[in-house]
Amino acid sequence: MWTKAALLPMAHPMSDAVSPLATPFPALPAIAGVTPRVVRAGYKDWGRCDLTFVELAEGTAVAGVFTRNVCCSSEVELGRANVKAGRARALVVNAGNSNAFTGYRGREAVEQIMAQVADRLGCPQGEVFVSSTGVIGVPLPKDKARAGVEAALTAAPCSWEEAARTIGTTDTFPKGATASAMIGDRRIDIAAIIKGSGMIAPDMATMLGYVFTDAAVEPAFLQQCLSAANGHTFNCITVDSDTSTSDTVLAFATGKAGNAPLASFDDAGADAFAAALADVCRQLAHLVVKDGEGAQKFIAVSVTGAVSDDSARRVGLSIANSPLVKTAIAGEDANWGRVVMAVGKAGEPADRDRLSIGFGGTWAARDGQPLADYDEAPVDAHLKGREVSIEVDLGLGQGRATVWTCDLTHGYISINADYRS
Amino acid sequence: MWTKAALLPMAHPMSDAVSPLATPFPALPAIAGVTPRVVRAGYKDWGRCDLTFVELAEGTAVAGVFTRNVCCSSEVELGRANVKAGRARALVVNAGNSNAFTGYRGREAVEQIMAQVADRLGCPQGEVFVSSTGVIGVPLPKDKARAGVEAALTAAPCSWEEAARTIGTTDTFPKGATASAMIGDRRIDIAAIIKGSGMIAPDMATMLGYVFTDAAVEPAFLQQCLSAANGHTFNCITVDSDTSTSDTVLAFATGKAGNAPLASFDDAGADAFAAALADVCRQLAHLVVKDGEGAQKFIAVSVTGAVSDDSARRVGLSIANSPLVKTAIAGEDANWGRVVMAVGKAGEPADRDRLSIGFGGTWAARDGQPLADYDEAPVDAHLKGREVSIEVDLGLGQGRATVWTCDLTHGYISINADYRS
Repeated sequence: MWTKAALLPMAHPMSDAVSPLATPFPALPAIAGVTPRVVRAGYKDWGRCDLTFVELAEGTAVAGVFTRNVCCSSEVELGRANVKAGRARALVVNAGNSNAFTGYRGREAVEQIMAQVADRLGCPQGEVFVSSTGVIGVPLPKDKARAGVEAALTAAPCSWEEAARTIGTTDTFPKGATASAMIGDRRIDIAAIIKGSGMIAPDMATMLGYVFTDAAVEPAFLQQCLSAANGHTFNCITVDSDTSTSDTVLAFATGKAGNAPLASFDDAGADAFAAALADVCRQLAHLVVKDGEGAQKFIAVSVTGAVSDDSARRVGLSIANSPLVKTAIAGEDANWGRVVMAVGKAGEPADRDRLSIGFGGTWAARDGQPLADYDEAPVDAHLKGREVSIEVDLGLGQGRATVWTCDLTHGYISINADYRS
Repeated sequence: MWTKAALLPMAHPMSDAVSPLATPFPALPAIAGVTPRVVRAGYKDWGRCDLTFVELAEGTAVAGVFTRNVCCSSEVELGRANVKAGRARALVVNAGNSNAFTGYRGREAVEQIMAQVADRLGCPQGEVFVSSTGVIGVPLPKDKARAGVEAALTAAPCSWEEAARTIGTTDTFPKGATASAMIGDRRIDIAAIIKGSGMIAPDMATMLGYVFTDAAVEPAFLQQCLSAANGHTFNCITVDSDTSTSDTVLAFATGKAGNAPLASFDDAGADAFAAALADVCRQLAHLVVKDGEGAQKFIAVSVTGAVSDDSARRVGLSIANSPLVKTAIAGEDANWGRVVMAVGKAGEPADRDRLSIGFGGTWAARDGQPLADYDEAPVDAHLKGREVSIEVDLGLGQGRATVWTCDLTHGYISINADYRS
């Protein structure tokens, strides 16, 4: 059902432009025990595939992190419940309809997909994970889902890039990441795809990320590694401070690499695996920011000297979520006063008279006062680039964190306001 | 020193346009015991008055509420400390320089003004209240402040409108409010002015509000009334979720009306006074939102059915601060899905399946599902107006709150990003 022409282009309906921060899709390795397929279920009137089906080998371990939005979708509710059992045989991702805020009818559609796939694969229903992304308030049409899943079960395998394009909605480029590690004498590979570019109009936006590895990992340890990675990757990015009702990241480990199964950090190779997983999560998180709505610049906010890492992260997010900081960067304006304001409103311990602010490694203010010999020239040059860093030292303790965001531009307003759904 | 020509126009430096939500300056009554004057201190290179001096009769009671931003200015620190003693003889407002983030030099400038005025009026230094608003990181020039205050001490009295214009910075129209009440057989009047239109580039923005009344009110009760009013007025507005380092609202009561002094809600007329004060605060708060940067629409978000009033307020602010909700309103798009998202991310108790969302009194979704017979026509018509209401019922309890904000438009981006300070 899939054709190359149908998948290209992937540009935002509001714009043919790909994000200026886009990077080419990387070469992702095949992962033993993982078979992605894409078909066109026709959830939306668009000429492209919109249903991604990933079959997983028996015994695949699964872990997941989900949105904290209390108005979450049925997909998230069911996924959160089923991931606790730790095993997965299939993933189904619907693009074009988020199925959120659709009551019992939406839930029935998800359960139908789970039952259909479980029946065909001969696995428990709870081993089938479903995500949906797209317009809200419209129950996922059961007939289209049923026909789409049926076709997907027998479709030819597709490439990672095809899968990455198919899970996308208003993304302007497909996103993937890879890493590998040695566990004893076995090399394990990780391939991962993600979609998301902020909460997107007119649809309910969503970050959906899927990490696949051939490593043998016990579910509880896989969850431990994913949760830890999530804390300093996906939980440290923001486009517009809005939290989707459907955000989901799932990690699947097929065990086909044949390594001695990892069950704790005491196991040989566990650190390497966790580092590789975190590396992939960080790459994916950055890619989402780089496709942020209207993004022209990628911003890293590094906070040091906080009373704790968690406090540093909250200060960083206060800065990264500040419309005034984000518009200042859009305007290439080293407006450190706005950074001061954002630090102060974070609700975290801070002392104005110990606060230092810098851009691109150049301090503009130290210890609560502008630097007497502050040279704005290198800062100005830095701010003209695509990648901008803001450094904040609170001067209180050893806590540190880095968060990532993008600038706030006319493009964001055009995408979200100029369009009448 | 002041000339009419110097005060007009008051348009934003980025634009000659006055906010489309602007209202004419109301007729404010003179308040016995309150004498406003304006002069040009020349804090900034602009041809207008920039120092407001308000002399207050002996025995005037004062109360205040201040920013919670921990990186607050020296003006805020000193004001917060001195308001506890409850008495005021003068108010000085500097426009064009916020004096924030200026270390000990900034503090010295404030203390100089306090000492100078206290010396001339023969009052304790702690009875002189100072506010500053404008560029940050530049200590308030002591010489200009000294000459300005000196001139102000002998300048002719000015009108409320002149004072309202002089405390303004990037405001696009002057803002005032009035109310009156009967306390026993005495009529008391309230006149109030405010400035602010969001955190403003390239300056550090600020909301500064001043309420003057001839009522006789004990300082502790005045503080009680102001704090209560603040909770459901100034604390219920947001332009861009950013919190100024200098936000200040002060209330002054001269006692010249001759009523029996109010000391508690048990006193006759106390309820009427508190209601009048709250009414003025609500008017002022709305005016700030109506001058929000780039604002094209005034938005009231009413939340009912929350577990508490405080929870309702936090849900309301989550909606009012959501860039996606604000851009949807800018686009006249009844995108209730974004409201659902904002409710869910607020971190407050909510149940997706009991949630109802409406616009302008028309429900779009009830009990977690879109209404089957939802008629978007009246909603579309409502959203085309200047004043928009969003209704959210959480279906959980009796808690309710209303918060006010403006839409997020290209104007906001232009004001904050397109300008290079």
